[in-house]
Amino acid sequence: VRLRADRLLTSIDLAATALFAVEGARRGVLAGLDVFGVIVVASATALGGGILRDLLIGDIPPASLRSVAYPVAALGAGAAVLGLFLTVGSVPTGMAMGVLDAAGLALFAVTGAVKALDHRMNALLAVLLGTMTGVGGGTIRDVLLDIVPGVLRQEVYAVAAALGAATVVLAARFGARRSTAMVAGAVACFALRVAALHWDWDLPRVRPR
Amino acid sequence: VRLRADRLLTSIDLAATALFAVEGARRGVLAGLDVFGVIVVASATALGGGILRDLLIGDIPPASLRSVAYPVAALGAGAAVLGLFLTVGSVPTGMAMGVLDAAGLALFAVTGAVKALDHRMNALLAVLLGTMTGVGGGTIRDVLLDIVPGVLRQEVYAVAAALGAATVVLAARFGARRSTAMVAGAVACFALRVAALHWDWDLPRVRPR
Amino acid sequence: VRLRADRLLTSIDLAATALFAVEGARRGVLAGLDVFGVIVVASATALGGGILRDLLIGDIPPASLRSVAYPVAALGAGAAVLGLFLTVGSVPTGMAMGVLDAAGLALFAVTGAVKALDHRMNALLAVLLGTMTGVGGGTIRDVLLDIVPGVLRQEVYAVAAALGAATVVLAARFGARRSTAMVAGAVACFALRVAALHWDWDLPRVRPR
Repeated sequence: VRLRADRLLTSIDLAATALFAVEGARRGVLAGLDVFGVIVVASATALGGGILRDLLIGDIPPASLRSVAYPVAALGAGAAVLGLFLTVGSVPTGMAMGVLDAAGLALFAVTGAVKALDHRMNALLAVLLGTMTGVGGGTIRDVLLDIVPGVLRQEVYAVAAALGAATVVLAARFGARRSTAMVAGAVACFALRVAALHWDWDLPRVRPR
Repeated sequence: VRLRADRLLTSIDLAATALFAVEGARRGVLAGLDVFGVIVVASATALGGGILRDLLIGDIPPASLRSVAYPVAALGAGAAVLGLFLTVGSVPTGMAMGVLDAAGLALFAVTGAVKALDHRMNALLAVLLGTMTGVGGGTIRDVLLDIVPGVLRQEVYAVAAALGAATVVLAARFGARRSTAMVAGAVACFALRVAALHWDWDLPRVRPR
Repeated sequence: VRLRADRLLTSIDLAATALFAVEGARRGVLAGLDVFGVIVVASATALGGGILRDLLIGDIPPASLRSVAYPVAALGAGAAVLGLFLTVGSVPTGMAMGVLDAAGLALFAVTGAVKALDHRMNALLAVLLGTMTGVGGGTIRDVLLDIVPGVLRQEVYAVAAALGAATVVLAARFGARRSTAMVAGAVACFALRVAALHWDWDLPRVRPR
């Protein structure tokens, strides 16, 4: 089932794609990959979550393989990071990058939840799918870089994605307009993730004695 | 192609999902993840094999994203392990857990083979798909935990899944009823896996000189 | 959408499957897996790229799960490597194996690009899909073996796949016959990869200061 093209959804999707490509390229540079490896990791990070979402929903081929705008956004953002590195000799780190990544997380979590609702999925499943869309790209990136995915260890990462998706679902249930629900969900996810970064929040660890 | 809802198949699927969520949560706790990380690993272990099966068969969205029962089974079983750990301070290990995991393996191998036959796949392909369904969730879990998947190293794990799937296919070919074939396959897989655990059977290793 | 069965495409696909199964089995033996683990890695390497391609294109179930020829090619080639190892006590290494792997890469890159064009994908997307088909199996293999995928580090690997796919797309655009475009693409990819192996070409590394 392919639904009416949705300009808002596509715009958000593209913005999230570019944001995650920046983070993916940055991590590839820090891991000492060659230039093409950096581009591969950037693309996998940027396109992975949306492709996973569309495969699971049954919107196949995935949106990012139907429109050339997605690979262009991913490759462009990845190349920009590479260009910056080749000029300046380093890539930015620290809080600013965490904020960009949080924005990508928020946007993807929201598109996942909205697309799931569009395909008449149940509320809990829509939250699950939004979370998977948000954390999917970064998980694939970390698996490729052979490290334990940050989503399993990072302070309040998947939780923020789940909060964003749940906000979308609740807002929709209470009759909010589609765009309102999306803004509310993105703000909730972004705020929680950035707060967790700033105050260094951690979920309780359950290390066995 | 979505076939007639099959209550037996769904029940077995749900039982396998809960069993694998227990094993996934246990491994997440032992790896020292935070509470949400444990839930993520439990869900990936529990839902991964069935999602892979349904994607490959073309039953999309996957069963576990059409019915809320699947995430409820996965999250419930994962939360139960977490609750046990937070109460008792440890998670069970040893033979009992290996037996639970063997039961999950047997049930998933059987559902994979039966669904493949339902979709008119060839006998060899049904065995292959049953094996992939059985070992898929644990493989995704181990990749997330950044260890070499047990299926590549463990005594007689994928072999047991393949035996269970082959038994289903053979029984079906010889005219056995669907439920009989499933019981026979599950028993064969479970018995071989538990025997391998108990007597510490190992396949010959092929280390190069 | 399933298109007219294409004998040339299927033959190339099967040859690539067997070539990648050889490389997968070899790597499994070198990693000291047990015999079934070797077969699992060989199958994942051989079938992974094509399955990924077909899932993303929407040709589901994937070609390799519709015809028994694919698993037979994968299992047969994997078993042959195992048999050789059990007889001789070692597996071949060095340039000859790199050349076989380059042939598999070239053939898969070409089938990915052609199938994408057949499904009316845009030129850039066809190049992307050809590249993913070429490098997909090896990436899954390396993730299973818990190492950073060679595609992120190896001299001119994904670049060669992209060149092969781009050659197919360009040739098709300039009106070349389908078989001509495929031969041209395969030769381009293979030549670049083998040259990179022989002269030890490396892409610039971007290690941060």
